[in-house]
Amino acid sequence: MNNSALPRALSNLIDAFGALPGVGARTAERYAYATLKGDHGKAVQLSTALAKIHNSVKLCPKTFALIDADEEVSPLYADPERDRTVVAVVEEPFDVVAIENTHQFKGTYHVLGGAISPIDGVGPEQLHIPELIRRLREDKTREVILATNASVEGESTALYIQKQLEEADLEDIKITRLARGLPIGVDLEYADQITLTHALNGRREL
Amino acid sequence: MNNSALPRALSNLIDAFGALPGVGARTAERYAYATLKGDHGKAVQLSTALAKIHNSVKLCPKTFALIDADEEVSPLYADPERDRTVVAVVEEPFDVVAIENTHQFKGTYHVLGGAISPIDGVGPEQLHIPELIRRLREDKTREVILATNASVEGESTALYIQKQLEEADLEDIKITRLARGLPIGVDLEYADQITLTHALNGRREL
Repeated sequence: MNNSALPRALSNLIDAFGALPGVGARTAERYAYATLKGDHGKAVQLSTALAKIHNSVKLCPKTFALIDADEEVSPLYADPERDRTVVAVVEEPFDVVAIENTHQFKGTYHVLGGAISPIDGVGPEQLHIPELIRRLREDKTREVILATNASVEGESTALYIQKQLEEADLEDIKITRLARGLPIGVDLEYADQITLTHALNGRREL
Repeated sequence: MNNSALPRALSNLIDAFGALPGVGARTAERYAYATLKGDHGKAVQLSTALAKIHNSVKLCPKTFALIDADEEVSPLYADPERDRTVVAVVEEPFDVVAIENTHQFKGTYHVLGGAISPIDGVGPEQLHIPELIRRLREDKTREVILATNASVEGESTALYIQKQLEEADLEDIKITRLARGLPIGVDLEYADQITLTHALNGRREL
């Protein structure tokens, strides 16, 4: 940024927006200028939300989902209507939101806090796997759904957890994985080979 | 946003990010989650910059560029080394930064505050044109560079200002426009017809 051409407060704001992921110089300028031109109330709203965020949110000690700082455990775990004997294991907190939005799942969640990725320096010891096993035993879980991403990292993480669960010798536990296949709205000719292979192998009788 | 799956502070932050231009639900989630995972200091930096922005920045009463609230006029206008007899007329404050970054211009600026656009409800009376004419007279300007955008709105604005300047009957004033032609790095075959027409008509002898 050429600072002499812009007031200091504005170039500070541009720099601060530029620290967000994937935000380059032009986007940061656009955000800053829109904020300046826009409603003062909106700027204050974002400012307040940012100032509060780190002290208002913590990890649930049981499921490692993000929860309000004044809550003890995740409301999705505490809720008596949710089935604790079915646990969906996901990589990141927002994956919980994605599954919740389907309104199809009445079990509980366990957030790993990432996926095994040697390139990014993430090993299995950084994920909440021992806590998962302890919890499955306590809650007498019947089914673990390994709902990690359909990426190389997600697949290896699922495989690793599957082995750990087998070694842990939990009684009568079913380990499942989300179905692989064609996503809605995709033409066969544009589907990649691996997806199509999964779709073929996983075909169902009507 | 399904709020029950996320702590309130986090969904507030997502909503606030979502108010930025061009930021949809997924991007807002990504910004919020990155902020939460990231350094507390960075969140505070953005928070502070946002809280200050509206009270720290104002428009220069002479050039309508953005300036610090404690400055009287734009430093680019006040600077005795800048030539007040050459004025570049631009649409928006960031256009000043773009021209400054070339390090080729030693004149001064005049920010119109937009371009004539009937669709967006912007008429010539909303632009700082009377102030421009007053200023050109006061500073005995020799050259006005109409540096509006190469868009339909920018072209009509330039044409309108040109007529106003002719009617104002300023003495010995030269009205110029930024050159149109091929941008650097573009192959002839990919250039659009209008650009190529401009490039042909504006060809220069070597």
